[in-house]
Amino acid sequence: MILDKIKKPNDIHKIPLAEFPQLAEEIRSFLIESVSRTGGHLASNLGVVELTLALHNVLDFPDDKLIWDVGHQAYTHKILTGRKGEFETLRKEGGLSGFPKRGESNCDSFDAGHSSDSISAGLGYVHARDLLGENYHVVSVIGDGALTGGMAYEALNNAAELDTNFIIVLNDNNMSISPNVGGMSNYLSAIRTAEAYTGMKMSLNKAVKKIPRVGTAMVDAVRRTKSSIKQLFIPGMLFENMGLTYLGPVDGHNMRQMMRLFNEAKRVKGPVVVHVLTEKGRGYEPARQNPDMFHGIGPFDIKTGKPTQKKVCPGYTDVFADALCQVAAEEEKLVAITAAMPDGTGLKKFSQRFPDRFFDVGIAEEHAVSFAAGLALGGVVPVVAIYSSFLQRAVDQMLHDVCMQKLHVIFAVDRAGLVGADGETHQGNFDISYLSMMPGMTVMAPKNDWELKEMLRFAVKADGPVAIRYPRGNAYQGLQEYQTAVEMGKSEVLHSGCKVAVLALGSMVEICAEVCSELQKEGIDSTFVNVRFVKPLDTALLDQLARNHSLVVTVEENVQNGGFGQQVCGYMEEHHPGIQVLPVAIPDRFVPHGGVDSLRVQLGLSANAIAEKIKKISGNYSEGIRE
Amino acid sequence: MILDKIKKPNDIHKIPLAEFPQLAEEIRSFLIESVSRTGGHLASNLGVVELTLALHNVLDFPDDKLIWDVGHQAYTHKILTGRKGEFETLRKEGGLSGFPKRGESNCDSFDAGHSSDSISAGLGYVHARDLLGENYHVVSVIGDGALTGGMAYEALNNAAELDTNFIIVLNDNNMSISPNVGGMSNYLSAIRTAEAYTGMKMSLNKAVKKIPRVGTAMVDAVRRTKSSIKQLFIPGMLFENMGLTYLGPVDGHNMRQMMRLFNEAKRVKGPVVVHVLTEKGRGYEPARQNPDMFHGIGPFDIKTGKPTQKKVCPGYTDVFADALCQVAAEEEKLVAITAAMPDGTGLKKFSQRFPDRFFDVGIAEEHAVSFAAGLALGGVVPVVAIYSSFLQRAVDQMLHDVCMQKLHVIFAVDRAGLVGADGETHQGNFDISYLSMMPGMTVMAPKNDWELKEMLRFAVKADGPVAIRYPRGNAYQGLQEYQTAVEMGKSEVLHSGCKVAVLALGSMVEICAEVCSELQKEGIDSTFVNVRFVKPLDTALLDQLARNHSLVVTVEENVQNGGFGQQVCGYMEEHHPGIQVLPVAIPDRFVPHGGVDSLRVQLGLSANAIAEKIKKISGNYSEGIRE
Repeated sequence: MILDKIKKPNDIHKIPLAEFPQLAEEIRSFLIESVSRTGGHLASNLGVVELTLALHNVLDFPDDKLIWDVGHQAYTHKILTGRKGEFETLRKEGGLSGFPKRGESNCDSFDAGHSSDSISAGLGYVHARDLLGENYHVVSVIGDGALTGGMAYEALNNAAELDTNFIIVLNDNNMSISPNVGGMSNYLSAIRTAEAYTGMKMSLNKAVKKIPRVGTAMVDAVRRTKSSIKQLFIPGMLFENMGLTYLGPVDGHNMRQMMRLFNEAKRVKGPVVVHVLTEKGRGYEPARQNPDMFHGIGPFDIKTGKPTQKKVCPGYTDVFADALCQVAAEEEKLVAITAAMPDGTGLKKFSQRFPDRFFDVGIAEEHAVSFAAGLALGGVVPVVAIYSSFLQRAVDQMLHDVCMQKLHVIFAVDRAGLVGADGETHQGNFDISYLSMMPGMTVMAPKNDWELKEMLRFAVKADGPVAIRYPRGNAYQGLQEYQTAVEMGKSEVLHSGCKVAVLALGSMVEICAEVCSELQKEGIDSTFVNVRFVKPLDTALLDQLARNHSLVVTVEENVQNGGFGQQVCGYMEEHHPGIQVLPVAIPDRFVPHGGVDSLRVQLGLSANAIAEKIKKISGNYSEGIRE
Repeated sequence: MILDKIKKPNDIHKIPLAEFPQLAEEIRSFLIESVSRTGGHLASNLGVVELTLALHNVLDFPDDKLIWDVGHQAYTHKILTGRKGEFETLRKEGGLSGFPKRGESNCDSFDAGHSSDSISAGLGYVHARDLLGENYHVVSVIGDGALTGGMAYEALNNAAELDTNFIIVLNDNNMSISPNVGGMSNYLSAIRTAEAYTGMKMSLNKAVKKIPRVGTAMVDAVRRTKSSIKQLFIPGMLFENMGLTYLGPVDGHNMRQMMRLFNEAKRVKGPVVVHVLTEKGRGYEPARQNPDMFHGIGPFDIKTGKPTQKKVCPGYTDVFADALCQVAAEEEKLVAITAAMPDGTGLKKFSQRFPDRFFDVGIAEEHAVSFAAGLALGGVVPVVAIYSSFLQRAVDQMLHDVCMQKLHVIFAVDRAGLVGADGETHQGNFDISYLSMMPGMTVMAPKNDWELKEMLRFAVKADGPVAIRYPRGNAYQGLQEYQTAVEMGKSEVLHSGCKVAVLALGSMVEICAEVCSELQKEGIDSTFVNVRFVKPLDTALLDQLARNHSLVVTVEENVQNGGFGQQVCGYMEEHHPGIQVLPVAIPDRFVPHGGVDSLRVQLGLSANAIAEKIKKISGNYSEGIRE
């Protein structure tokens, strides 16, 4: 095996070029084998095997800086930098991360996870290099999907003014996670279609900065016939117009051609876009056929491509997807928006049933939200479905364009709370904080599948902005006997006890059912509340609890600062200072990848840990200290 | 006066075209007169008088939707929709807002204030219109400066796929607030330079979607000579490449030409960019010469263009500007970043002294922050100076790219807290909440000018991400006798008393000095603390206060949810449940424009209101209820 010769960074420089194709095949087999056992991102990684080899061939690590956008395509890079042996631990607690991590290797230059930031980061490295008089190379690899994100354009706009080398590799597979959208995508398709150019080098002068006065003859020529304009289509002209040198397109599975282009790119005194055409899922037919499904996947059978773990019960995403279709059938004005995640958010079903009312805006969360504001003003009811950690991108748009105008926009905040294997970049641990600070925002979390459906119905009939947060994974199906109608700002009391009240939010209701029965065993007949509404705060309930409780425990899967617990503390301090509040939340830190249950144990969010904490404090009370 | 004939929306339709030039002059005189007395945005408004007249001529209000980006250029629109009589109250409490407000007029289609969202909002209107079978026109006006913001590009990318009418007016004055930056700006300059085209209609077919297979002859022709490429420069090709019809450029002060183009644009079945060239400050020489200074200005003398109100003492921005230059002289690795606000943030001074270490990235807060992350990784020390309300745009980048990687990036958060005349879109009332939820972020606020300087020095020497928030306006120069060295996470105790402790943050220290002396008069010897650090929380101090205080009052100029007060409540509830905390903060609502002092009174943040609240509660204590 050639692959066995690669044990540390730059070992690839010892491999003769003639052996690269076989090496690529070995890596591909390893990736398929390995991910079939552990799960992980597959299609994107299969697409960039040759691209990564070509880049490693022309770069030196760790001196040169290679920045992967999003980073789920960095597996080959990890293999080539001495981490092959750790793939059995991929995405497992304490194991290899699914994304680049500087903590894992000094060959990882930027911790990635979210989209469209690699050019910004790369440009930072470039300027720092120049200021400090160093001379390494900086390469940012960005997908055509990530290029739909506005900050990539902000960065290109700035990179255009550089006069030193900076290589931007446009990894163009015609996909976000799903097929790509928008004008830029159409433009890139046009380049791909202009096959005559494939592999051809097009080192154009910067058309923009040195534009000569256009002669009258030329103007007339253009004026004469519109069709002549079509003839002027030149690959990369859009980039050249912005002031970036464009090289390509090049076949992303032809290593010799890529290396030739990369070497040329290294010599350019300025920003260069190298346009590389790759195929998602390359070399493994099931992934090639279903790149969406093999984007992120659990363990699967290599022969059939079928998952080896069967889904036992529907996830919250499935519940949301079905409920949204039901509501949409009744409410014709309902429309739905996704930011390049029709599968992940469950909106695919909606898009098939209501194609005219469905919008995939690309990886463009900011636009998604302000677009929704415009839709709401135009008289329809938009549901914006975005993961909790990605919605962070649109905090200002939610505040400024939606909440300030009190617009009826519904936010379906999926992957709220701990997500597990994707790790710290994807944990949805902040949404309660950033949503709660927004005046006029209603913030809800359902205890189970039934309640998510009810909350969605409620949200559609409500006024103003409404967010529903729900976690990744299986929808809890317990506690079906509690089905109080959802009313604005009202919690659901599941059990009325005294002295101790447990206020559990969303996913924590399931956990706290255990907590309360644990307390019961110790003789503590605690009140058990399904919070439902983080905002508006159910102050009527809090006032009522204050009458016969001395301890109110809040439990949420969100960081403590700005969380539900602190809000309750704030209210109780002001209005019922004699009652103690114990806010249980995620401590003030980032949470790495691992199993959700195990992470909860570490974070003090297990039923056991919560019960112990309560027993300890209420023990103080029963000893008469506070009663 | 022709202007007197315009009393309500659409009255302009009765004015003969021949009278438009005189009408424009009358409006211009009115604007100069009026703003010279009240202050306000001037240069941008003088630039779009003819543009607004031309738009009003071809549109019907309120049926058609006109969306102004940022919105500080909508004065003529306000005049033409019946609000001329209210200009004396401009930006004053209860008076006319400086920005479009749906609450003021049904001819305002979108409440604006922040940049780059008008195309998103317009696209929302367009889709809602089409879904509901209505047929009004939607026009989004966006500046070339706002086009440096990524979400504008996200929206263009989506608009490109429309097959119904949507008009995007590119109001190109070659400026953000300051001269514009980046590749797109260079591109637009090139269009402007290609004078042959000015005023020429260029209704090009969409080059992208229907691109024919490029013939070999064409390829060869291109290959033969690079210089031939330069000949291919066609105005608007970049937009056409993306799939948008491009019309223009047109002289933005020639109303007939503009109206002809707008009428043509209304007939296009798809998205149209109309490129309009305007001049900031047009018609008033001082504003034309100094568009930066006349962007937003206080009352001024019309003859000289000089401000009639003299600055009495330096603002926090000035203090920051000087301090940054001092620190930069000592620390060579320090660099500074602004998002199109070199004047507003005070970085102009830095840019003049250290041009190589200064970066104006355009209106691109997201990029600014991730760019800073890259710079930090590359070994320099970036200071990112952005207003509190604009930094909301970069919450994810701060969390994901800076805090998660524990990078040493300094955030100079100007305009934190109430800003006054600019109103709800510009109040910096959320930064404590969104900064505090970020693990690893240090959050500080200085009590006075001296402390801002010290905090900046401290931040440069610290590790990890550090934010310093400071308010708009005069830097407080009192309390100079307290100059304890700034230490990580340590508050400054200004006076040690007992029973009641007042913890004041930043701008509230000045206010609370009054509060404490008020309390003193009532015989309450309160402890008075300058908080300095919101994060990390000074828990040592809180533990200490718990020993001989029964009431801890926190005072901050930030919304209550997620604020400093709730954080203190959370800590005290868990560790010192017997001590009451009274969190004084901005209530959970948006705060409209008005004088800062008056707003504070309304919000319960005046010294008097705070003192009363404390006396009431501590009265309870002295009656023995809690002691």
